[in-house]
Amino acid sequence: MIGIGLIGYGYWGPNLARVFSALPACRIVGICDLREDRRGRAAQSYRDSIVTSDYKQLLDSPEVQLILIATPVQFHYPLAKKSILAGKDVLVEKPLARTSAEAEEIIRIARESRRIVAVDHTFLYSGAVETMKGILDSGELGEIRYIDCVRVNLGIFQHDVNVIYDLAPHDLSIIDYLIRRDPVTVQAMGIRHENHNVEHLAYMHLEYEDDLIAHFHLNWLAPVKIRRTLIGGTKKMIVYDDLEQSEKIKVYDKGIVIRSDDQDSLNRVRIDYRTGDMVAPRLESREPLEVEAEHILSCVRNRTRPRADGEAGFRVTRILEAAQRSIQRGGAPVSLESD
Amino acid sequence: MIGIGLIGYGYWGPNLARVFSALPACRIVGICDLREDRRGRAAQSYRDSIVTSDYKQLLDSPEVQLILIATPVQFHYPLAKKSILAGKDVLVEKPLARTSAEAEEIIRIARESRRIVAVDHTFLYSGAVETMKGILDSGELGEIRYIDCVRVNLGIFQHDVNVIYDLAPHDLSIIDYLIRRDPVTVQAMGIRHENHNVEHLAYMHLEYEDDLIAHFHLNWLAPVKIRRTLIGGTKKMIVYDDLEQSEKIKVYDKGIVIRSDDQDSLNRVRIDYRTGDMVAPRLESREPLEVEAEHILSCVRNRTRPRADGEAGFRVTRILEAAQRSIQRGGAPVSLESD
Amino acid sequence: MIGIGLIGYGYWGPNLARVFSALPACRIVGICDLREDRRGRAAQSYRDSIVTSDYKQLLDSPEVQLILIATPVQFHYPLAKKSILAGKDVLVEKPLARTSAEAEEIIRIARESRRIVAVDHTFLYSGAVETMKGILDSGELGEIRYIDCVRVNLGIFQHDVNVIYDLAPHDLSIIDYLIRRDPVTVQAMGIRHENHNVEHLAYMHLEYEDDLIAHFHLNWLAPVKIRRTLIGGTKKMIVYDDLEQSEKIKVYDKGIVIRSDDQDSLNRVRIDYRTGDMVAPRLESREPLEVEAEHILSCVRNRTRPRADGEAGFRVTRILEAAQRSIQRGGAPVSLESD
Amino acid sequence: MIGIGLIGYGYWGPNLARVFSALPACRIVGICDLREDRRGRAAQSYRDSIVTSDYKQLLDSPEVQLILIATPVQFHYPLAKKSILAGKDVLVEKPLARTSAEAEEIIRIARESRRIVAVDHTFLYSGAVETMKGILDSGELGEIRYIDCVRVNLGIFQHDVNVIYDLAPHDLSIIDYLIRRDPVTVQAMGIRHENHNVEHLAYMHLEYEDDLIAHFHLNWLAPVKIRRTLIGGTKKMIVYDDLEQSEKIKVYDKGIVIRSDDQDSLNRVRIDYRTGDMVAPRLESREPLEVEAEHILSCVRNRTRPRADGEAGFRVTRILEAAQRSIQRGGAPVSLESD
Repeated sequence: MIGIGLIGYGYWGPNLARVFSALPACRIVGICDLREDRRGRAAQSYRDSIVTSDYKQLLDSPEVQLILIATPVQFHYPLAKKSILAGKDVLVEKPLARTSAEAEEIIRIARESRRIVAVDHTFLYSGAVETMKGILDSGELGEIRYIDCVRVNLGIFQHDVNVIYDLAPHDLSIIDYLIRRDPVTVQAMGIRHENHNVEHLAYMHLEYEDDLIAHFHLNWLAPVKIRRTLIGGTKKMIVYDDLEQSEKIKVYDKGIVIRSDDQDSLNRVRIDYRTGDMVAPRLESREPLEVEAEHILSCVRNRTRPRADGEAGFRVTRILEAAQRSIQRGGAPVSLESD
Repeated sequence: MIGIGLIGYGYWGPNLARVFSALPACRIVGICDLREDRRGRAAQSYRDSIVTSDYKQLLDSPEVQLILIATPVQFHYPLAKKSILAGKDVLVEKPLARTSAEAEEIIRIARESRRIVAVDHTFLYSGAVETMKGILDSGELGEIRYIDCVRVNLGIFQHDVNVIYDLAPHDLSIIDYLIRRDPVTVQAMGIRHENHNVEHLAYMHLEYEDDLIAHFHLNWLAPVKIRRTLIGGTKKMIVYDDLEQSEKIKVYDKGIVIRSDDQDSLNRVRIDYRTGDMVAPRLESREPLEVEAEHILSCVRNRTRPRADGEAGFRVTRILEAAQRSIQRGGAPVSLESD
Repeated sequence: MIGIGLIGYGYWGPNLARVFSALPACRIVGICDLREDRRGRAAQSYRDSIVTSDYKQLLDSPEVQLILIATPVQFHYPLAKKSILAGKDVLVEKPLARTSAEAEEIIRIARESRRIVAVDHTFLYSGAVETMKGILDSGELGEIRYIDCVRVNLGIFQHDVNVIYDLAPHDLSIIDYLIRRDPVTVQAMGIRHENHNVEHLAYMHLEYEDDLIAHFHLNWLAPVKIRRTLIGGTKKMIVYDDLEQSEKIKVYDKGIVIRSDDQDSLNRVRIDYRTGDMVAPRLESREPLEVEAEHILSCVRNRTRPRADGEAGFRVTRILEAAQRSIQRGGAPVSLESD
Repeated sequence: MIGIGLIGYGYWGPNLARVFSALPACRIVGICDLREDRRGRAAQSYRDSIVTSDYKQLLDSPEVQLILIATPVQFHYPLAKKSILAGKDVLVEKPLARTSAEAEEIIRIARESRRIVAVDHTFLYSGAVETMKGILDSGELGEIRYIDCVRVNLGIFQHDVNVIYDLAPHDLSIIDYLIRRDPVTVQAMGIRHENHNVEHLAYMHLEYEDDLIAHFHLNWLAPVKIRRTLIGGTKKMIVYDDLEQSEKIKVYDKGIVIRSDDQDSLNRVRIDYRTGDMVAPRLESREPLEVEAEHILSCVRNRTRPRADGEAGFRVTRILEAAQRSIQRGGAPVSLESD
């Protein structure tokens, strides 16, 4: 039985509590939040758990083996660090930290302390992403030429982070998992409201080696909700629409054909297209957070590396940080290497 | 009765011929194309028209008052120039020219010769764009914060122009008409296939004064066809989906509300959102090209300036040119002023 | 504080428990289910409630004022009857009873005992239905000519009731609430699998006075989920799509125009159509079951008649019963009057 | 070179003229219409064809081998009969005739005269229907349990035929082609406007042997256009949406599974469902009318039986007629056998 301490009972914390508490392999030893109203709700739902405003009480508890950190981003680094130094494994909300330096230090301390760092990249545990992973690994798409992500809706403007830090970790963690490659340069352009201190709309553009690009539209001020990713391969292409009820993944047997014998083209090749069937594979429908929770408990038990580990959190954080720098430089490309 | 000469009977020329020939106010005097098979088709459909491989025959004809130029882009400038110097009015396919310098010279010559230059920005004559124009002019959207255009599908890779020159003139001409403003900077990033000489996927990013931005996803290698524009205002927002059968324009009574009394925000304002009804206005359903043809004939008859005149063509061409330069500079912002 | 006893903790019972238990005006005194596994789950979630396999324990409890009956249909009548005779108010799952005779007796006993009978017609408390009710009551649709309901998906074939009893109460209760009229005749046709004892696909057809009809497609064997109702008026029409995220109700300003001067029609009138804007009104987004629970607690407290009372349950049951009879008679129309 | 005479140049005639005139294997010898404006349009488009108000001129012409009949329904029978007796093959608009007796006589005369009768069931020549035909013939759907057709939109109310005669021939001809079976009984219910003489909304219900049913919603007074057919098999199911741009046919690997070992079901079987991938096969995209025209010219040349022959026209007409009778009998089932 793995003992769990949860820090942060705002928007996401209750979901973590609900899912972990339903698993037989663990129990919620304690829940910490600074706000009294939230502590009241936690106490009502988890009567056998300690509810406290002092996170140290959880770090000090010998019953607690795993700390879940679901606070605002600025507290991820100090709380993760203290938890690890107190001998706990940690699961940290995305993004892992504000800066890549913070992320690196969390990784370093965990390595030295032989503690596990997991980042809550929940989408990696969804049936849709798992299915795409299988398709990409099989090579059936041909060469991947581009990934285009649109994640927009009408949402409350946050104050502590901009729309990139808020929304992009989802797509960045999915792409990181799917293609296992780091971009070379990052560009980002954004706008903020005159009375607001962070961007509410941003475009981010990543360039990888071998002419692969990834592009992101992130927006809190859109009239409709769109969650759609296009993955363009030379042989097949994917449309991933997370708002579709059952056909979230569509694989199009469409691609390009290079013809070299075309007389019109003056000895150049001609690129034509080819179109075949579309398949929407059946997807695993279990709740991703539940799959993730089981996976992380298994990692804690067996001392193995989680699918989304500290390094994955670092890679995402590093891109967010570079995007922030690009915005400050008026959209100029920022190299990841030189940072 | 206005006499018309049509140069170019490839993809778009037959549409111009079909629509103009159906109007009582004009007649197709002659059609020119270099390819014999196309001339054969023209001759079969328009038995009373001259069909020729020599465009000079049309320029020399005293019966011809208006020349329609529907050739590849590289011939727009020389043919428009010669037509105007031969005393003809011209309607030129989009984009007006390859470079802004060419476009400027066409305008200059036309002004000196008192000839009319129209550019075939067909979308300006659609019910959808006309309806959006009315909405934007009324001010009911509040401040426009962004325009986001996605125009993607699986299409034949062209050789003479890249995907920006091919697809962006539609959106640029619409935006030019809707907001009547010039961008300050242009950025563009694109990819091309290793065996191909022009970009098949590009993103273009325009910045205007007062924090307005416009962004474009242009793509010949997408598995699905998307033609969708979001216009985000502070009071209302529009979704324009040109593939919708009847509800192409949706106006969302959604926007942001600035709250200054929020205690959580430490004396900063809080920006919240507001959501109301959606209205899809009834749209005029006449074929846009027919509306355009009537408009241009009226301009020719009354010597008035067409809705899409040479200046509109120049403004679009100048942005295309700047986008091209930005791609060559690795996505760096290019100022329109300094050109 | 109203004390509540819940009988039946299978599919729907836990939802009732969740929603009522969250309201401050009541508390769950006890929960009854015959199956041990369900009692285990109930006990875990509601630690302060009695959990029992004997419903009489709830009927006998002086703390219980309202009994919620969420059992299979066959037990609705006996449990409602006993609850009322024990002095309790009741909320019964839909359909109220297997037969109109049972429903009538429940109503009679409740009237004599001055107890409240509510039927769980949850949709009546949704923002979508409330909005439609306002539109219909305003008269802006003109004369209602037809209502067409499609409620299909791939679902587990039930054994105790056929697809009409399972799915039609939703649509019948909505229509009953919207138009407040009883049909004159009922027709139904259905098919059952050779190895199955109840219909898994059925069409039901109701005729009202003044040429109004309502038609239903009810299906457990459909590859896609559809929840769509068309309401056709002579002046406006509604499409109600319950699977739409935010635009569940669309009001089309479309209708017919009668022209009497048409020469083609040989002195008959000509009926033409008219088309205008479409409006998707903003809907109240509170959970319908929560709205309903508050309403019913208020009725219990103030001794008022619930929106969906025993009579509403009777009217729905009577139509279900007639549909069953029509199926047995090979689809022949069954008159409601003569029953 | 097959000579063609076209009778009727109203709504559909011009389409027939356009498609047949573009084929090298035939030429339009003459076009007949009673209205002068239509003759004017025909003359302008087909300068080498005779244009006349007297159909006898076409029947008398030795150059004409095939008569296309695109008049109102009431003239199909007399014109087809006279054309055949004049030695011509005929292609008749759908439905073939007003009554099955008329259809039978057309067939009889044609058989005696060794003339070809084709009915313009255009959908049979579409890529979508051809693909469905292949799937059904392969048996992969398992047993077909039902076919549900919705064909509704806002349309001009016709005077000479009701909505069943207007819209149902499309679906009936498709089903006839797909399953090659005759229904046993036909039911139909419809409503008409008080000022109008024919039904503008109707439901039609066919029962076949072996528990197969087909159901139709046909409607001129719907706010939205729907063209959707569900085909439910025990192993797979099809959704055919003719308004989809490219994915008109979706094949769902969904079906039912019979479990006999279920303890809950008291020795009865339990029917559960199974869900797998969805495939949208690539469809032939040629214009169906062009495929049909080539097919019919080939039949005329080779004296072979067309895909949609007089018998197909008869079968469709017989169902329309029975539906009409059922409406007159208040929706009672009408047997096809006894007619």
